[in-house]
Amino acid sequence: MGQLYPWKTSIPLDRQSHRPLYLQIVDALIREIVSGRLASEYKMPGTRYLASLLEVNRKTIAIAYDELTAQGWLKTVPAKGTFVSDSLPQLKPVVPSDAPSSTYLPEKARFEVTTLVSSFRNSPNALLRITDGSPDVRLAPTEEIYRWCRQIAKSATSLRYQDEQGDSYLRETLAQYLRQTRGLVCQPEQLLITRGSQMGIFLAFQALLQAGDTVIVGEVSYPEANRVIELCGGNQLEVPVDEQGLSTDAIEAICQRQPVRALYITSHHHYPTTVTLSIDRRMKLLALAQKYDFAIVEDDYDYDFHYASSPLLPLASLDTQGCVIYLGSFTKCIAPAIRVGYLAAPTDFIRSITPYRRLIDRQGDPVMERALAKWIEAGDLQRHVKKSLRIYRERRNFLSQYLRVYLNSALSFREPEGGMATWVRCDSIIDTLALAQYASKREVSLEGVEHWQNYQGIRLGFASLTSDELEQGMNVVTKGINFLQKKN
Amino acid sequence: MGQLYPWKTSIPLDRQSHRPLYLQIVDALIREIVSGRLASEYKMPGTRYLASLLEVNRKTIAIAYDELTAQGWLKTVPAKGTFVSDSLPQLKPVVPSDAPSSTYLPEKARFEVTTLVSSFRNSPNALLRITDGSPDVRLAPTEEIYRWCRQIAKSATSLRYQDEQGDSYLRETLAQYLRQTRGLVCQPEQLLITRGSQMGIFLAFQALLQAGDTVIVGEVSYPEANRVIELCGGNQLEVPVDEQGLSTDAIEAICQRQPVRALYITSHHHYPTTVTLSIDRRMKLLALAQKYDFAIVEDDYDYDFHYASSPLLPLASLDTQGCVIYLGSFTKCIAPAIRVGYLAAPTDFIRSITPYRRLIDRQGDPVMERALAKWIEAGDLQRHVKKSLRIYRERRNFLSQYLRVYLNSALSFREPEGGMATWVRCDSIIDTLALAQYASKREVSLEGVEHWQNYQGIRLGFASLTSDELEQGMNVVTKGINFLQKKN
Repeated sequence: MGQLYPWKTSIPLDRQSHRPLYLQIVDALIREIVSGRLASEYKMPGTRYLASLLEVNRKTIAIAYDELTAQGWLKTVPAKGTFVSDSLPQLKPVVPSDAPSSTYLPEKARFEVTTLVSSFRNSPNALLRITDGSPDVRLAPTEEIYRWCRQIAKSATSLRYQDEQGDSYLRETLAQYLRQTRGLVCQPEQLLITRGSQMGIFLAFQALLQAGDTVIVGEVSYPEANRVIELCGGNQLEVPVDEQGLSTDAIEAICQRQPVRALYITSHHHYPTTVTLSIDRRMKLLALAQKYDFAIVEDDYDYDFHYASSPLLPLASLDTQGCVIYLGSFTKCIAPAIRVGYLAAPTDFIRSITPYRRLIDRQGDPVMERALAKWIEAGDLQRHVKKSLRIYRERRNFLSQYLRVYLNSALSFREPEGGMATWVRCDSIIDTLALAQYASKREVSLEGVEHWQNYQGIRLGFASLTSDELEQGMNVVTKGINFLQKKN
Repeated sequence: MGQLYPWKTSIPLDRQSHRPLYLQIVDALIREIVSGRLASEYKMPGTRYLASLLEVNRKTIAIAYDELTAQGWLKTVPAKGTFVSDSLPQLKPVVPSDAPSSTYLPEKARFEVTTLVSSFRNSPNALLRITDGSPDVRLAPTEEIYRWCRQIAKSATSLRYQDEQGDSYLRETLAQYLRQTRGLVCQPEQLLITRGSQMGIFLAFQALLQAGDTVIVGEVSYPEANRVIELCGGNQLEVPVDEQGLSTDAIEAICQRQPVRALYITSHHHYPTTVTLSIDRRMKLLALAQKYDFAIVEDDYDYDFHYASSPLLPLASLDTQGCVIYLGSFTKCIAPAIRVGYLAAPTDFIRSITPYRRLIDRQGDPVMERALAKWIEAGDLQRHVKKSLRIYRERRNFLSQYLRVYLNSALSFREPEGGMATWVRCDSIIDTLALAQYASKREVSLEGVEHWQNYQGIRLGFASLTSDELEQGMNVVTKGINFLQKKN
């Protein structure tokens, strides 16, 4: 019996694998049974025969059969032999009998797969990346931070499950830091530690929105916030953005017409235009939030980087009425790999939002959180920001100078007062995606174009590149613009 | 002018703070203006007067006034003095004028706060914690893992933004590991790296469910999965759980009645009862998923810990039709602080789910992900599991022995074949929450009771405690049971 069965191809053995041979045989035979190729009551070949066929020790087959019998796949009838169990529910033999037995997880799911959110492009591995505004990770003080991590990980306490609101020591240190750097006075229990601004955006809108709730956003805005609002069922209404930021007149007009649940704003440096919301608009916005009872989600992702006078206080620091949910992150100060951010809000909102944090991601990284607290407490974050600020200012100035000299007739821009990117607009109609493709072929990835095609806008991240690198990258961009202009 | 204003209390100065005094004055004056206490056109006191009142240098006041003028809060009229700007929109002076000017973020938000999900209790800081099944972090090889982290963090590449699907090197290593340890054959692109099982549960149901979709769960199940399904709009139908696991007859009966979108199962060791789903139920369940086109979300949080024969293959390893979404995590193998898990599924589902991962949490921790890959590749994970397995088996045996000797008449249990906890049921009616309170007063926290009160069930985590600690903790539990039984 069993001589006709293609045992050798059905039971592929990998002798380099760490998985014992007997378990590889078990796996393969289970697959044969599950696929229906080995039907119930099928008489299995003798151990000696199968062993010689597979070139393994006979004991190996015997152990595999024992295991399969113990698990219920096979049964042994004394004096008759070993059979595939007849008590197993049969799966339809949907796989053709000549299919390989070690199948991969299929390409397609059996259940219906819906894609609510379209996929983002991944950044290509170009030689030189002009991002939409990332820090220079080469400046990141990871040596110190991971030294702290290693030390903290020695304590069992920091390895256990922890408070989903985040490390209490980091929340205390952060409360101090926010007070010192931006006049934001809050208690540690008014802070929730997140994995970065993105998680803060998600949690805020998840807790705020019911399906159909109105959310006001800029006509250009941070696309991944737009997607979160969409995902959470929000109905987005756009308001114009001018050189003072979001138009508060337009916001007021909406509020007069209909209930508004929330507003999303990057007040310090509007994304993507880098415009700072003016003082009177700040006051007006807070007054509107008070009058119409909506929540302001203030995404302050790059507060620390301001090159002119001291930066304006965040809306959250001016708010005495509990209108503002404030989001920040260490991603832009240190490195994208350091995934720690925070959300500051009135106590009742923090209490409402914390269970959501637990549901999407049990808790943060207690070792990294404590390490950051130690590092901030030692004054190292402020020193690092100060150093980066000096370097980034030079790079911003270099880019401005480059744009004035080489691209004055093709691009308009206003030098940003802070942040890590300069927002430029093309004076003539240029396909910015075609420009990115042109650059990509020349090993330069131009990442800040994707969402601004209709606005002829590009975000040119200057912070992550040295002057030499910026020059090299911008030379390709300049050639691309000239090429595309001639083509028009 | 200004002599009547309570300047000294309105401008509290902290001379220990790292925030410069002039900025503290700026902050405080902005707050006075925002709160409406300093009205527009109010004439500010002279710098000399205010400086002497606040006991600071006159220049400090002058710099503060300059900053406020530059930002637009104040205006200077030549030969007349400095005034609060009259161009600012007025906020209602809602704060009484005697309120302190450095207010905290309020307790209550102005906008309406809804709490959809009730808060969980945080674990108390008891002397001795009998968890619901956590690993012993004292065994965790964090020294090696963080040594890898430090080395990997030296490379700028790992500090930049990375693929939201997770480190490609970890996905390759993990594909190997899953094949070797559980016969699960998948490609790296069929894996999504998460922060742990919890994020996997959230992402799976977020992508699967529309409001009102039916999800089948056990009558007892993992409560935080239940909450996620609720949050994602799922309608949960419960099926009985017996000594073979979820009842497939009950599942079939539901499928015959109505469409089913998904089923949640902890097949290896059912949570909380630790029961293993039998082979014929596995086959039946897969057949049902194929017939009725529903997704099986298989949460295999503790596959690595099995004390009897080699563990049954996961449903995902038997599935050739793309019915299963498989969740795993390193949390239980290493330590809760190491927040890396994964989701394996058909390629199209992985593509559908990845954008959600990006929206809730831009990406994982590339340094830790690469470190784990290196560590697994070196064979250290398997060595660590083997060592832990030996220790945990002894602890399980110790607990079984204790239960038989001291609590035989009060509790029923079946020794679990794997995992980190033993499920016990009280024979007489005991208030298990009262038992936890009794223990808590004696410095022992009994954590696996919260959700099982109606079932008279307790999950006793044995893995995280030595025999001595288990004995000490269980002695308190025994006394508590005796005390409560007498009271009845």
